[in-house]
Amino acid sequence: MSNNTDTSKLWGGRFSEPTDQFVQRFTASVEFDQRMAREDILGSLAHAEMLCTVGVLSASELTQIHDGMAQISQEITDGSFQWSVELEDVHMNIEARLTQLIGITGKKLHTGRSRNDQVATDIRLHLRSAIDLIGAELTRLQQGTITLAAANCNTIMPGFTHLQTAQPVVFGHHLLAWNEMLERDYGRLMDCRERLNQCPLGAAALAGTTYPIERAQTAATLGFDRPTENSLDSVSDRDFAIEFCAFAALLMTHMSRISEELVLWASAQFNFIELPDRFCTGSSIMPQKKNPDVPELVRGKVGRVNGNLIALLTLMKSQPLAYNKDNQEDKEPLFDTIDTVLGSLRAFADMIPAMRPKTEQMREAARRGFSTATDLADYLVGKGLPFRDAHEVVGKAVGHGVATGTDLADMPLATLQGFSSDITADVFEVLTLEGSVAARNHLGGTAPQQVAAAAERAMALVEARSVSGE
Amino acid sequence: MSNNTDTSKLWGGRFSEPTDQFVQRFTASVEFDQRMAREDILGSLAHAEMLCTVGVLSASELTQIHDGMAQISQEITDGSFQWSVELEDVHMNIEARLTQLIGITGKKLHTGRSRNDQVATDIRLHLRSAIDLIGAELTRLQQGTITLAAANCNTIMPGFTHLQTAQPVVFGHHLLAWNEMLERDYGRLMDCRERLNQCPLGAAALAGTTYPIERAQTAATLGFDRPTENSLDSVSDRDFAIEFCAFAALLMTHMSRISEELVLWASAQFNFIELPDRFCTGSSIMPQKKNPDVPELVRGKVGRVNGNLIALLTLMKSQPLAYNKDNQEDKEPLFDTIDTVLGSLRAFADMIPAMRPKTEQMREAARRGFSTATDLADYLVGKGLPFRDAHEVVGKAVGHGVATGTDLADMPLATLQGFSSDITADVFEVLTLEGSVAARNHLGGTAPQQVAAAAERAMALVEARSVSGE
Amino acid sequence: MSNNTDTSKLWGGRFSEPTDQFVQRFTASVEFDQRMAREDILGSLAHAEMLCTVGVLSASELTQIHDGMAQISQEITDGSFQWSVELEDVHMNIEARLTQLIGITGKKLHTGRSRNDQVATDIRLHLRSAIDLIGAELTRLQQGTITLAAANCNTIMPGFTHLQTAQPVVFGHHLLAWNEMLERDYGRLMDCRERLNQCPLGAAALAGTTYPIERAQTAATLGFDRPTENSLDSVSDRDFAIEFCAFAALLMTHMSRISEELVLWASAQFNFIELPDRFCTGSSIMPQKKNPDVPELVRGKVGRVNGNLIALLTLMKSQPLAYNKDNQEDKEPLFDTIDTVLGSLRAFADMIPAMRPKTEQMREAARRGFSTATDLADYLVGKGLPFRDAHEVVGKAVGHGVATGTDLADMPLATLQGFSSDITADVFEVLTLEGSVAARNHLGGTAPQQVAAAAERAMALVEARSVSGE
Amino acid sequence: MSNNTDTSKLWGGRFSEPTDQFVQRFTASVEFDQRMAREDILGSLAHAEMLCTVGVLSASELTQIHDGMAQISQEITDGSFQWSVELEDVHMNIEARLTQLIGITGKKLHTGRSRNDQVATDIRLHLRSAIDLIGAELTRLQQGTITLAAANCNTIMPGFTHLQTAQPVVFGHHLLAWNEMLERDYGRLMDCRERLNQCPLGAAALAGTTYPIERAQTAATLGFDRPTENSLDSVSDRDFAIEFCAFAALLMTHMSRISEELVLWASAQFNFIELPDRFCTGSSIMPQKKNPDVPELVRGKVGRVNGNLIALLTLMKSQPLAYNKDNQEDKEPLFDTIDTVLGSLRAFADMIPAMRPKTEQMREAARRGFSTATDLADYLVGKGLPFRDAHEVVGKAVGHGVATGTDLADMPLATLQGFSSDITADVFEVLTLEGSVAARNHLGGTAPQQVAAAAERAMALVEARSVSGE
Repeated sequence: MSNNTDTSKLWGGRFSEPTDQFVQRFTASVEFDQRMAREDILGSLAHAEMLCTVGVLSASELTQIHDGMAQISQEITDGSFQWSVELEDVHMNIEARLTQLIGITGKKLHTGRSRNDQVATDIRLHLRSAIDLIGAELTRLQQGTITLAAANCNTIMPGFTHLQTAQPVVFGHHLLAWNEMLERDYGRLMDCRERLNQCPLGAAALAGTTYPIERAQTAATLGFDRPTENSLDSVSDRDFAIEFCAFAALLMTHMSRISEELVLWASAQFNFIELPDRFCTGSSIMPQKKNPDVPELVRGKVGRVNGNLIALLTLMKSQPLAYNKDNQEDKEPLFDTIDTVLGSLRAFADMIPAMRPKTEQMREAARRGFSTATDLADYLVGKGLPFRDAHEVVGKAVGHGVATGTDLADMPLATLQGFSSDITADVFEVLTLEGSVAARNHLGGTAPQQVAAAAERAMALVEARSVSGE
Repeated sequence: MSNNTDTSKLWGGRFSEPTDQFVQRFTASVEFDQRMAREDILGSLAHAEMLCTVGVLSASELTQIHDGMAQISQEITDGSFQWSVELEDVHMNIEARLTQLIGITGKKLHTGRSRNDQVATDIRLHLRSAIDLIGAELTRLQQGTITLAAANCNTIMPGFTHLQTAQPVVFGHHLLAWNEMLERDYGRLMDCRERLNQCPLGAAALAGTTYPIERAQTAATLGFDRPTENSLDSVSDRDFAIEFCAFAALLMTHMSRISEELVLWASAQFNFIELPDRFCTGSSIMPQKKNPDVPELVRGKVGRVNGNLIALLTLMKSQPLAYNKDNQEDKEPLFDTIDTVLGSLRAFADMIPAMRPKTEQMREAARRGFSTATDLADYLVGKGLPFRDAHEVVGKAVGHGVATGTDLADMPLATLQGFSSDITADVFEVLTLEGSVAARNHLGGTAPQQVAAAAERAMALVEARSVSGE
Repeated sequence: MSNNTDTSKLWGGRFSEPTDQFVQRFTASVEFDQRMAREDILGSLAHAEMLCTVGVLSASELTQIHDGMAQISQEITDGSFQWSVELEDVHMNIEARLTQLIGITGKKLHTGRSRNDQVATDIRLHLRSAIDLIGAELTRLQQGTITLAAANCNTIMPGFTHLQTAQPVVFGHHLLAWNEMLERDYGRLMDCRERLNQCPLGAAALAGTTYPIERAQTAATLGFDRPTENSLDSVSDRDFAIEFCAFAALLMTHMSRISEELVLWASAQFNFIELPDRFCTGSSIMPQKKNPDVPELVRGKVGRVNGNLIALLTLMKSQPLAYNKDNQEDKEPLFDTIDTVLGSLRAFADMIPAMRPKTEQMREAARRGFSTATDLADYLVGKGLPFRDAHEVVGKAVGHGVATGTDLADMPLATLQGFSSDITADVFEVLTLEGSVAARNHLGGTAPQQVAAAAERAMALVEARSVSGE
Repeated sequence: MSNNTDTSKLWGGRFSEPTDQFVQRFTASVEFDQRMAREDILGSLAHAEMLCTVGVLSASELTQIHDGMAQISQEITDGSFQWSVELEDVHMNIEARLTQLIGITGKKLHTGRSRNDQVATDIRLHLRSAIDLIGAELTRLQQGTITLAAANCNTIMPGFTHLQTAQPVVFGHHLLAWNEMLERDYGRLMDCRERLNQCPLGAAALAGTTYPIERAQTAATLGFDRPTENSLDSVSDRDFAIEFCAFAALLMTHMSRISEELVLWASAQFNFIELPDRFCTGSSIMPQKKNPDVPELVRGKVGRVNGNLIALLTLMKSQPLAYNKDNQEDKEPLFDTIDTVLGSLRAFADMIPAMRPKTEQMREAARRGFSTATDLADYLVGKGLPFRDAHEVVGKAVGHGVATGTDLADMPLATLQGFSSDITADVFEVLTLEGSVAARNHLGGTAPQQVAAAAERAMALVEARSVSGE
């Protein structure tokens, strides 16, 4: 780094001493905001084109700027660009290099804008791109999940509540529950995208600018739906980052729930699934270990995303308008959230379709644990008992089963009749696993035909996305 | 409370000892979920009507249930209903009373449902009502804000960045920045409402039910757009509560920013506004105090709403499907968030229209602090200087002003020309406050005519809501 | 409630209109701070005694105040005290009633203090009492846990990492791991108690008072170690509440981990423990269910405690000194945290000693899953292989075992020798569960004799507490 | 990076396919945990020395390891060390390089330990070093603050509550309030240090090891107070990271409050302080701006620290024992918190002593706003009025002052007597600023002599630290 002098700063006129060296590093953002270089250049080009349209820049000046920016892009891509902490941020670094390359015209680029609206534009562009990538990975994960569900409409497993065996369900039904969570996440992601897609360029420092700018032009060039409505709000607003992190926190909460189930199912005790070796790792000390690292890590990552959400909410609490330096703290939590979500989705989109259900073990687990006790109660209701009384009868039969180690389906008819004289030989049909799942035959129920239809509807929704774009 | 016995429980059949007395209180939810009694009864009636439609209940049984529920509603309203902790929750309390009132038919009501789908339905109904109330208060606050903005398109105040005087703006422009935040909040609230408006009834415990239920009927009766898609998801999903709390955290963050500004402006140092006495309180010891309690308290309340959001996210982290007892913890954070948001909005919707801007003090503050320095730089750009060089010139002039205690508009022309020979006598026009704000005359800028138009657009958006209704 | 008038307020002198009715309710705290009535009265009596000592009150005035407060205490206890929202808070309610009872002397009580130092004192007293109750319950839970551990020094179960079988451990060792968490929690609780135990009385509104107060006297009367050092800090500080909530968040995180294990162990798949019926509940629809409600609920309750911590941190962020109305929001999160921690500890202190390990199932689970593979690697190291090479050899043997469904201990010697010629017949000793656990015979290891000694040390630490008293 | 093959993994024996390339990157931690390389080597050396003591390694093997590690340290220092993502983490990278350098002996180093206890040791060592650096910067900040306070025992400024002028205080008193917050923070930091300073080495994977290790030796070598008590807890415990982040969240909350006041005081409206140019930055567009960037940025940074705390609490929620891959997520939040706290403290320790109070402006602000109204009330109490009645009288006088724009000290005696006939000419003494502050002459009060004594006590406490050393 070169020596610091007043004149290296673009704002040094009124200052009588140079910035403290430590303060310079402490307050600089270039180490993390250089990630937005592509968006910064795109935004500058759109701004320059507009300045040319309204006559503030000449056509040849615009060409110079285009050429300079092309070279800068190349330098950044090939790693030869010299980032300087003294120049504080990505904006100043690029502008200073531009002026180095093309001279006085570079200094004109900042006409009619400020870093306040510039950074707001960069972040929105950057996040919008990230949203599109995330939308694609989320879609891929849903497709894999639904496909696996469709293939497992008849794979019976125990359904749990309170982690106790509750009623038999089919594995495909369980997978489609995951898909419902992800489907809502996709909706929230799209809502967030729509709300952020407005262009703050032109707000300048806080109040707008005295130049005859055309905000609609820059908005359109950059693919925004429209310019933002209010200049003060434009430079102070970080709602889009918070709304995105709220989306991400909920998505990662869902991913943590899915992960928890994968970890449980991969345990020796459940033994419901096999995860391919390539998604697992071993132990440096215990030679037998095959650990479900990917779901464990994803489960842990919900922590950082919740943390990032709180970081941004805390950041914005009580800030007076318009822009305050505090806001520089918006980027790292946002970038970390983007990376975490993308990585987690990619890992799951690869892994979920490759996991193998152990259908025999699932079925055996469902057979145990009195999972069809509700069916017996419903059977008794069919015989005329009020539900509450039927529940009591079956509760007593289960108590007997627990005490004697006998499942309901394995009790002699006479034993069952000891609990209710309404029970007849046809009871054993309702106590089978197939009978139980097939009987829940309504929209949203676990009957195989319902699950197959639900998988079709779910896939149709997901496929429709590619048609509507975005 | 009566003595506990096995038979007082609706699930006691398989249990060999009564619930521990402390555990009973510790696990009961009736103290806070009785708040959903209205929704619980509505849901039960819709369920009973559907059971009648499909032939599970007879018409006379349905009539009994209607009559019993009417009496229970009356008892709750007049405070004579006896809530029992032994009966755990609102659902069991109401059902037990129903059976007391109408006998065996009351026991049939729970046919084809479970508390798991019942509570999911109750919460959605309760939250939906709350959203509608919140939407109305938010709208009222926006109307008051926009009206005040429209009346202050020419009230000049300093615009701040970094809490330093930046550029003059008009007060109406600042108020409309607030409205932009609130407008986005309204959008998020409506998105949340739409996503929650699906009916989980029929999911039963987790897998659906063996009865020939008509989920579309109950959904329609209760004003839901459609039944939910997956029974496991239906009983485990609490996304709507989290999404609502995320909306609320962002809204309250906005309210904290507005509050911060009100507190600053009401200070002796800023002295920009007068809050009516009826929104302030005094001190028990300092007789001169008039404290802006309402904005302070609202600023503080963002804490509990952020906390409630984290409470719910933490709650759901890593929970395996389908329903776990953990979920009982969803209600108190949600209810507290509803109450906090409603109270805060109501207080502000009352107070904002009643606050009085002190226009002279605002104007005087804008006049100081070199607020038109940017205009001078722009003026020099107009004379041909690159913006960066103009910035440097003005920086030096300001440095001189700070040292001598003279504002730019008060310097002799010769002094100004000492910094740049491009300056001529017309410079003093751009240094006026009126000139400065009027010059920012583009969409989103602070020029009075732009602000007036923006207020009109904003009000039109808000007014349009009442047409589409909620 | 009576009609509001200026004169009902203790601060109304400079106000020209009464407080808005809704604002009055919105800003009042009496509904939740009346919980501190006992502490408020104790603090007032200590203050009055000090005022008497320094001559501000006469002895007969002090007697009047004592008598009045005695009656008020009685009224609060028997429920006849009339709390008024117009009187805002617990302090004003009690003072107003005192003046009603004893006349003009009641008005003198507030001499030399303010509600700002009064409420700070009340909260500290209240929290200190809560800490003592919590310390006692935590101690009881630890005692129960250690006792169960001591009884299970030879109960072998699988130790898990990544929820995969890792190495055999004894159940007592696992329980003592829980105790270590709780032991650290106790240390943090005591540190918090010590730091809070300073008396803010005398700080008055923010700057101290002009009366000749004796702060050391009130501090001593109320059991504080000393007066606080700085009046501004005294009225603005809420560190104690945050530090307590941070303690609580970590404690509840531990409780959530213990709960997770209890829920897993109570599942049909693990089947490691039996929880007594009195700590479980059933299902309204599934007659066979016995749900581990208590650990599930406690697991969920970590959410609200994390939320309360964030609520308080958010609350205090960016608050300028000294007291702001925001701080009224400190109480509800604190009280809720106290209640949650106390209830959760009590439930666990009752339940843990009553849970029954299913030793056969634990042992059988440990026998499977190649849990002694590390012992085989260590055995090979003893024969001269570097650890990394031994690990590789055992890894291959396990791979064979997985493929053929054979555990290491069940392979013929010849098969084992196929993986390493260093293996001889003595290998089968190290592959037994008893041999494996006994071999980890060092401080902190799972060897039964180490665990027994660790349980003794742990109990000695806990028992020592009662000596030092609280 | 080289191609991945089974044998590159230290745990690959039982695996039949290599790790997925993306999964390898996704699950690797070396990019962030290489920061602990120094501690990892220290820990390995201590472990090797102990293995030599107990006869597992020979003296010459120990020498080899020492030499190899010396070279590795050098390579890391000079940047020539080749970090490999395939080798997952800092531990494997260093061990693999050691084996490359010294051959088979390198493979013996991992005898009797696991990455689980290794990483737990590394983090504790790393955090302990960080705590010592933070303690030193915190001490430096306190020293600067107390020194400035001691120099400003007579500098009068307005004390605020509700950001309304409350009573005059001296600037030194206000600064010492800051110091009280920081003093408590220091106490919490030391408590955290003490609790973490136990050595987990020897816990191995989770259950201890079969080798005859001497845990007391490694603990002593590494400067720990003692070995940890329980192996399962040792590898699963992350309390120290959470307790540290809780300390940091509270410290940064204090820093945000101090920052808020600095930002307010640096505004044109307050104008109480001058921050040196070297701690401020300017605007790219507004030439007059001098922004208090450092306090603004520090205020914003409380967000990330609160977020990191929530990240860790969320991470640990519901994790069953012992080690899970989730825990890899513990490092980044912890490291980020360390860096944030260190940077913020350093910036403030530099800046606070360099800030200049504008004593005239402070005094003038205190003179306005009826700041001595409480003194008038106390004066009337001295004349025999009950405090509540005196409060009412002064309230009316202030109301008159507000209406007429006259401060109390500027009202004619006759006017004052119109509010209470008890007022006589000596009233004007109590209405002076000097009289007001001097009258609050008790421990903790704002009287200059009290503040001077408090500064001395505060400095003595801070100076005592260097004696007890760290």
